[in-house]
Amino acid sequence: MTNTDSVFSAPADNPEIETEDHVALGEDYALTASFVEKVVDAADDGDGMRLRGLLEDLHPADVADLMGFLTAEHRTVVVQWLPPDLLAETLPELDDGIREEVLERVPHLTLAEALQELESDDAAAVVEDLEDDQRERVLAAMPETDRAAIESSLGYEEDSAGRLMQREVMAAPLFWNVGDTIDHVRSQGEDLPELFFDIYVVDPMNKPVGGVAISRLLRSPRTTPLSELMEPVNEISVTQDQEEVAYVFEKYNLISAPVVDASGRLVGQLTVDDVVHIIQEENREDILRLAGVSEEEDRSSGVIDIVRGRVPWLGVNLFTAVLGAAVIALFEGTIQQIVALAVLMPIVSAIGGNAGTQGLAVTVRALATRELNASNAMRTFWRELMVGLLNGLVLAPLTGLAAGLWSQDWRLGAVIGAAMILNLLVAATVGVLTPLTLSRLKFDPAVSSSVFVTATTDFFGFLIFLGLATMVLL
Amino acid sequence: MTNTDSVFSAPADNPEIETEDHVALGEDYALTASFVEKVVDAADDGDGMRLRGLLEDLHPADVADLMGFLTAEHRTVVVQWLPPDLLAETLPELDDGIREEVLERVPHLTLAEALQELESDDAAAVVEDLEDDQRERVLAAMPETDRAAIESSLGYEEDSAGRLMQREVMAAPLFWNVGDTIDHVRSQGEDLPELFFDIYVVDPMNKPVGGVAISRLLRSPRTTPLSELMEPVNEISVTQDQEEVAYVFEKYNLISAPVVDASGRLVGQLTVDDVVHIIQEENREDILRLAGVSEEEDRSSGVIDIVRGRVPWLGVNLFTAVLGAAVIALFEGTIQQIVALAVLMPIVSAIGGNAGTQGLAVTVRALATRELNASNAMRTFWRELMVGLLNGLVLAPLTGLAAGLWSQDWRLGAVIGAAMILNLLVAATVGVLTPLTLSRLKFDPAVSSSVFVTATTDFFGFLIFLGLATMVLL
Repeated sequence: MTNTDSVFSAPADNPEIETEDHVALGEDYALTASFVEKVVDAADDGDGMRLRGLLEDLHPADVADLMGFLTAEHRTVVVQWLPPDLLAETLPELDDGIREEVLERVPHLTLAEALQELESDDAAAVVEDLEDDQRERVLAAMPETDRAAIESSLGYEEDSAGRLMQREVMAAPLFWNVGDTIDHVRSQGEDLPELFFDIYVVDPMNKPVGGVAISRLLRSPRTTPLSELMEPVNEISVTQDQEEVAYVFEKYNLISAPVVDASGRLVGQLTVDDVVHIIQEENREDILRLAGVSEEEDRSSGVIDIVRGRVPWLGVNLFTAVLGAAVIALFEGTIQQIVALAVLMPIVSAIGGNAGTQGLAVTVRALATRELNASNAMRTFWRELMVGLLNGLVLAPLTGLAAGLWSQDWRLGAVIGAAMILNLLVAATVGVLTPLTLSRLKFDPAVSSSVFVTATTDFFGFLIFLGLATMVLL
Repeated sequence: MTNTDSVFSAPADNPEIETEDHVALGEDYALTASFVEKVVDAADDGDGMRLRGLLEDLHPADVADLMGFLTAEHRTVVVQWLPPDLLAETLPELDDGIREEVLERVPHLTLAEALQELESDDAAAVVEDLEDDQRERVLAAMPETDRAAIESSLGYEEDSAGRLMQREVMAAPLFWNVGDTIDHVRSQGEDLPELFFDIYVVDPMNKPVGGVAISRLLRSPRTTPLSELMEPVNEISVTQDQEEVAYVFEKYNLISAPVVDASGRLVGQLTVDDVVHIIQEENREDILRLAGVSEEEDRSSGVIDIVRGRVPWLGVNLFTAVLGAAVIALFEGTIQQIVALAVLMPIVSAIGGNAGTQGLAVTVRALATRELNASNAMRTFWRELMVGLLNGLVLAPLTGLAAGLWSQDWRLGAVIGAAMILNLLVAATVGVLTPLTLSRLKFDPAVSSSVFVTATTDFFGFLIFLGLATMVLL
C-alpha cells in the first residue's frame, strides 16, 4: 500500500480528492483556486508544517500543477517543505522552465538519491535539464549502473525514441510457454519495469519476433507456448522522432512498443502514457507556432523571455505590413480623390486574412495527422479554391450592395465586390499552398504560415481593390 | 495467429510494412501516395481481385486512412471488395463523414453481423451514425444481448464517459487472492474484454474499492490477497464529459479507469487508447475553432458543407470589419488632408492583430490544459500587459522613425509610434480577457475568440491612430 509510483493517483490511506481539512481538487480533477491560495498563504507565513500538511498527500502530478500556479518565490518555499520522495516523483512532471529553476535549488546529493528512485527515462529527462557542472556532480554521486543508464540515454538525440524509451523491458525467449514466463516474472520482479503491458518475444540474437499482451498471457493455460500467442509488433527504432512514434501509437491503438537499436536488437520500450504527453506537446507546438509564439514559452516564462520569443514574429509582421503599406502608397493619388477607398480597403483585406487562416488551419491539421499527402494535395487545393469562390459569391454581393448604397456609387460597390472575390481566391491559394510547400521542404508547416498568409491577403487585398478602383473609377 | 483485433498492427503471416508486391506504408508509417494511386487505378479498372489483393493485408487503421484519400466514387468500389471482417473493424476507425457515407451502402444484415464482432463501445460508435430507420433494422437483426448493450450505450449523452466506455470489464471481489483471479481469468476468458490492463476490486455492492495493474498481479505469488496489491483508482462517472476524462488520464498517466453509475457501481471501463483519440479530437477542435472553422469539417466534406461551416464566421468578420470601416469614415476629413494616414493605418492594426493572436493562443492553450485558473488569472493578465508594453517599446521607435523619415514629418512618426504602443496594450488586454471571459461563462474559449480579438485591435488601431493624428497633426 505504500508504493505511490503507479497508474493510480494517490496513496491508498488518504485519497487526495477528499483530504479531510482541505479539498485540493475540484470536481473536474483540476486544483482549485482556493487550495492554491491556501498554499500561498502558508508560504507567505513561512508556516512549514502547514505547508507539509497541505502537500504531502498530493499526487506528484498535482504538485507539478501547483508549482505552475505559484510565483518563483513561493516555489522556493514549497520545494523546501516537499518530502524528498514526493519531490523526486514531481520532477519529471514539471514544466521545463520550472524544473530548471527547481533543480538549481536542490543539493546535488539529494538529487542523486532522488533520481535513483525514478525509472531510467524519467531520470534522464531530469538530468538533461541540469547545468553541465551540476550534471557532472550529480552523475558522479550515483551508482555506476544508474549512471551508465542515464548517460546512454542522453547519448540519443533529444526527442528521439532512444531518449524517451524506458530501458527496463520484459523479454522472453521464443521457446518459453505461459508458465515459464509467469514464473520468470515472479522471480525476477525487481529487474522488470514497474508496469508493463506486453511481453516481447525475442530470438537468440535478442531481436523481437512478436509480442504477447499480458491480459492474453493471463487467460491462457500455463502450457501454451508463447509462439502460439504472440502477434507481430510495431518495432520503433532508437533514432525515430517522437512525432512519428506518437503517430504509430495513435494509429494502431498501441499500449506499448519495443524499441530496437540499429542492428534490430531489443533495447527498451515505449509506453502509451509517454505518448500521451508527446501528443499534447506536439499539439501545443502547433497552436503556438500558428500564432507566432515560441514553443518554449510556458507559464513560468518571465516577461523578457516572452518578449524575446514573440518580438521576432511581430517584427516579421511589421515588415510585411510595410509591404502592404507600400502598395497603398502607390495609390495615394487615387485615395486623395476618393477617400471612401481608404474606408473600405480594410474590409477586403480582413475577409481575405480570415478566409486564408481558415484554410491554413485545416491544412496544417491535415498535414499533422497525415490526412494530406501527394495523392490528394491537388484535390484539396481545388476544393479550397471552390470554397473560396463560393464564399466570395455569398459575401461579395452583400458587401457590394452595402458599399454602393453608402457611397451612392454603384461602381464602387462593384469594385469592392469583385476585389473581395479575387482576394478570397488568393486566400484559398496561399492558405493551402503555404503549409504544403513548407512541409514539402521539410519545414514545420505551422511555423510562420499565418504571418505569411495574412501578409499575402493584405498585400493583394489592397492591390486588387485599389488597382480596380483606379481603373474603373478614375 | 489469426486474431487481428489486438494492440499489434498486422496479421502475423504477412506484415503489411513489406507486403511483397506493393509497399503500402512509407518509413513514417503513413500510407504512401504511390500505394493510394495503385488502389485508385485498380478501382478505375474495376479490377476487384487486384483491389482485394491490395487491401486484404492492411490493418483496419490503414484501410480507414486509405478511405480518406479516396474520392466518394472510389470509396464505393473499395467497400464492395473489402473482406467483411476487415470492413467491420474499419468502421470504428473512419472519419464521421466517411462512415456515414459507407454505412448507407452496406446492407443491414451484413452490418448487423459485422457489429457483433466489435467491442460494445466500437459497435455503439458505429450505430450512432446510422439513420433512424437503418438503425432500427440493424438493431432488430442483432441478438438480444448485443442489442441491449448498444441501446444502453446510446442512452448516455454523446461524448460522455457512459457512451465511450467499454462494458466488458475485469472485476474481482475483495476477498480473492492472485491465484483466484488468474484461475477466473483462465476460465472466463470469453466474457472478458479482449485486452485489459487493470483488475478492479469491488465490494459486495459492485462498487470499486481499488485496482490492481495486471503486471503487478503477474509478479505476485498466487497466495497474495488482492487487498494487499490494490491501489486507489480514479473513478470516472458515466456522465463525465470526454474532455474531463482525457484530462484525468493525461494528468495521472492512467492506462485504464473504472466507470461507475450514479450509485457508484462499476458499469464499464475506459482505456487509454480511446483517450488518445479524444485528445486528438479536442486538439483538432481547438485549432479549427480558433481559426473559425466548424469542427465538423473533415477531408470528406463537400464544398457546400465546408462553405456552410465557414461562411458564418466570415460573415461575423465582415460585420466587424464594417465597424472598423465606420471608425475610419469618422476621420475621412483628416485622411483627405493627410493621405499618408491611409497608407500607415493598416500597419497599426496588423501588429495589434498579430500580438492579440499570440496572447490568445497562449491563453486558450493554458485554459485547455487547466494551467490557468482564478488563482493566476490576474497575474497572467498583468504579464501579458507588460509583454504588450515591452513589445511596443521595441517596435514603436523603429516604426516611428521609418514613418517619420518617409513622410518627412516627425510628428507623424510620433503619432504612429504612440498608437502602436497603445494598440499593443489593447491587444494584450483582449487577447487574455476574451478567452478568460468565455471560459468563465462556460463557453469554449477558442470559439470566435480570434475574430473578436482582431476586430477589437482593428477598431482601436484605427481609432487611436486616426484620433491621435487628428489631434496632433491638424
